[in-house]
Amino acid sequence: MSYDDNNIFAKILRGEIPCHRVYEDADTLAFMDVMPQSNGHLLVIPKIPSRNVLDADPAVLSKLIPIVQKLAKAAQDAFEADGITITQFNEAAAGQTVFHLHFHIIPRYEAQPLKPHTGKMEDGEILAANAEKIIGELGN
Amino acid sequence: MSYDDNNIFAKILRGEIPCHRVYEDADTLAFMDVMPQSNGHLLVIPKIPSRNVLDADPAVLSKLIPIVQKLAKAAQDAFEADGITITQFNEAAAGQTVFHLHFHIIPRYEAQPLKPHTGKMEDGEILAANAEKIIGELGN
Repeated sequence: MSYDDNNIFAKILRGEIPCHRVYEDADTLAFMDVMPQSNGHLLVIPKIPSRNVLDADPAVLSKLIPIVQKLAKAAQDAFEADGITITQFNEAAAGQTVFHLHFHIIPRYEAQPLKPHTGKMEDGEILAANAEKIIGELGN
Repeated sequence: MSYDDNNIFAKILRGEIPCHRVYEDADTLAFMDVMPQSNGHLLVIPKIPSRNVLDADPAVLSKLIPIVQKLAKAAQDAFEADGITITQFNEAAAGQTVFHLHFHIIPRYEAQPLKPHTGKMEDGEILAANAEKIIGELGN
């Protein structure tokens, strides 16, 4: 399987479409999922192209995972979540829909099952406010 | 939240209870999940205690994730899977049931939804055979 640089995350990385950014460094971008499965659901991606974990450079993964951790902790604090589910899907059969490597960070709340991926976009103001909450935690 | 060294993975690490081991190095152990959500479901854990990602040493995560990748690729090949779902749960609200950091590697097959965690143990001979399949791929 090859990398298609017309995927939506490649377009976000090129600045061709916007995102609600929460974190960026030389290697990494993190932004809010526009179809969140819970309040505060965000995504972390490496800037270097790979389709998913199966074709990624191990060194890229080793740099990425501490950022995933940092953002998981920030999201837990920002949303006073009871837990954090981290998921990473490889290929369509595994639930992957955008073919640029990404980790989902999904805040979890007692007795609240995850929302299904219905295709319903979250309100932009809510996403912007949630991004600010995470950014605020990262600054603490 | 603190680490309780009576959790089942701590007991596996101490050799007090058995597992169907597929990989081990100085820092890492991987073994078959005894209640698999699909054929070939395995777990990867660091040997150093932490409750989950939220209290882990980032350096431990950076060492662990290339092993998760290696085992994901081996499982995909071993079971001719159509995809790989990787999940990592932090705290009970997120689905965590054993409080020692672990990554799930779950082979996925077209048109086969994941089995629920029913508490039903898989047959030991199937787990042993599946472990051997992954070990065989790692040797290739």
